[in-house]
Amino acid sequence: MSAPAGALHGLAHVEPGDIERRSFETIERELAPRVLDPLTAPVVKRVIHTTADFEFADTLAFSRDAMAAGVEALRAGATVISDTTMVASGVNKRVLGRFGGRAVSFIGDEDVAAEARERGMTRSAVCMERAAQVEGPVVLAIGNAPTALVRIWELLGEGRMAPPALIVATPVGFVNVVESKELICGLDVPHIVARGRKGGSAVAAAICNALLYLASNGERA
Amino acid sequence: MSAPAGALHGLAHVEPGDIERRSFETIERELAPRVLDPLTAPVVKRVIHTTADFEFADTLAFSRDAMAAGVEALRAGATVISDTTMVASGVNKRVLGRFGGRAVSFIGDEDVAAEARERGMTRSAVCMERAAQVEGPVVLAIGNAPTALVRIWELLGEGRMAPPALIVATPVGFVNVVESKELICGLDVPHIVARGRKGGSAVAAAICNALLYLASNGERA
Repeated sequence: MSAPAGALHGLAHVEPGDIERRSFETIERELAPRVLDPLTAPVVKRVIHTTADFEFADTLAFSRDAMAAGVEALRAGATVISDTTMVASGVNKRVLGRFGGRAVSFIGDEDVAAEARERGMTRSAVCMERAAQVEGPVVLAIGNAPTALVRIWELLGEGRMAPPALIVATPVGFVNVVESKELICGLDVPHIVARGRKGGSAVAAAICNALLYLASNGERA
Repeated sequence: MSAPAGALHGLAHVEPGDIERRSFETIERELAPRVLDPLTAPVVKRVIHTTADFEFADTLAFSRDAMAAGVEALRAGATVISDTTMVASGVNKRVLGRFGGRAVSFIGDEDVAAEARERGMTRSAVCMERAAQVEGPVVLAIGNAPTALVRIWELLGEGRMAPPALIVATPVGFVNVVESKELICGLDVPHIVARGRKGGSAVAAAICNALLYLASNGERA
């Protein structure tokens, strides 16, 4: 059915399954002659695929152990805990579920909202206390709230949170965003951080998905 | 509880409710001396707030009637129909619900997947046929799939979809993204389009939320 539009407006005819492959080819072509670290390239390229923003090739920071720790945790059925429903919504639940994992966010819980009001904290910060109670391997995927990152940093420092398998830290914005992500960069816990102002829930989900696809050797369904 | 981290790492102490106000002040300061069109500025600034990407000040394109049409439709309880669960997830359902509206996406429906397989189309394109059946005012918020935009363009051209109140078109990526958004720019239907490669579900949700906050005169809860 899309032939008329394609013919009239220069749209390429691409089979649905080919769109991603062609996108990655374009990304690789435009990144050249820059050579990415082959270990972290799948994450970097997927984030660029999600954002069309090549700046992430410069701003994504990986702790030395982050890729292995992330892949291993996801294969072991890690719970992906995020600060927004948008991250949870963007993570590939089919692949995650095949390993026995699930994606959760506590941000919509009524008791979280009540406790945040009572204690004068953000809901995101309270959510991280909930996250500290989750059993088994955990990937924290924080795409929105600097206060979530600060609370993680505090809880780890106070020994009130076991070190997660991986922290994905990609809040976006203008107030305490850069600083809170730098806090995570300073932690001796596996982390992938989008330094600077940019990031977002889609970036956090894209990072998790890149790790999931590595964990499943490219199998998506 | 965040005082230690703030004291140690230069994080500003900001009350949760103040973060957005301060972010918008920063955006306005950094946009200067550029002056935005006051009619569309709330949308442009909210998209920059969501992405920390000032490029959107140049790429967001508004049809002449888009702002009024969007606000009026949302006040009338429009259904916001998106191509991803992430857009639906990012739209402020409290404000939307106060007007009697709801945010939906058909992308996860089993029968959509089956029909897409059978007809060799993308699920997103099939979703737009479902969208054409929805009664009442509709805002189409397409943050991901070029094929959804092409299908909207075709259905409108064939008279098989009533013109929606507003089309928000912000797919991101490298294959048919620019071209499909230009198709929407050519339509005589109210539209807000992120021209170029950039965009995403968060951008589509931010545009809807900016319109919702205008519709509710700034009331959020």
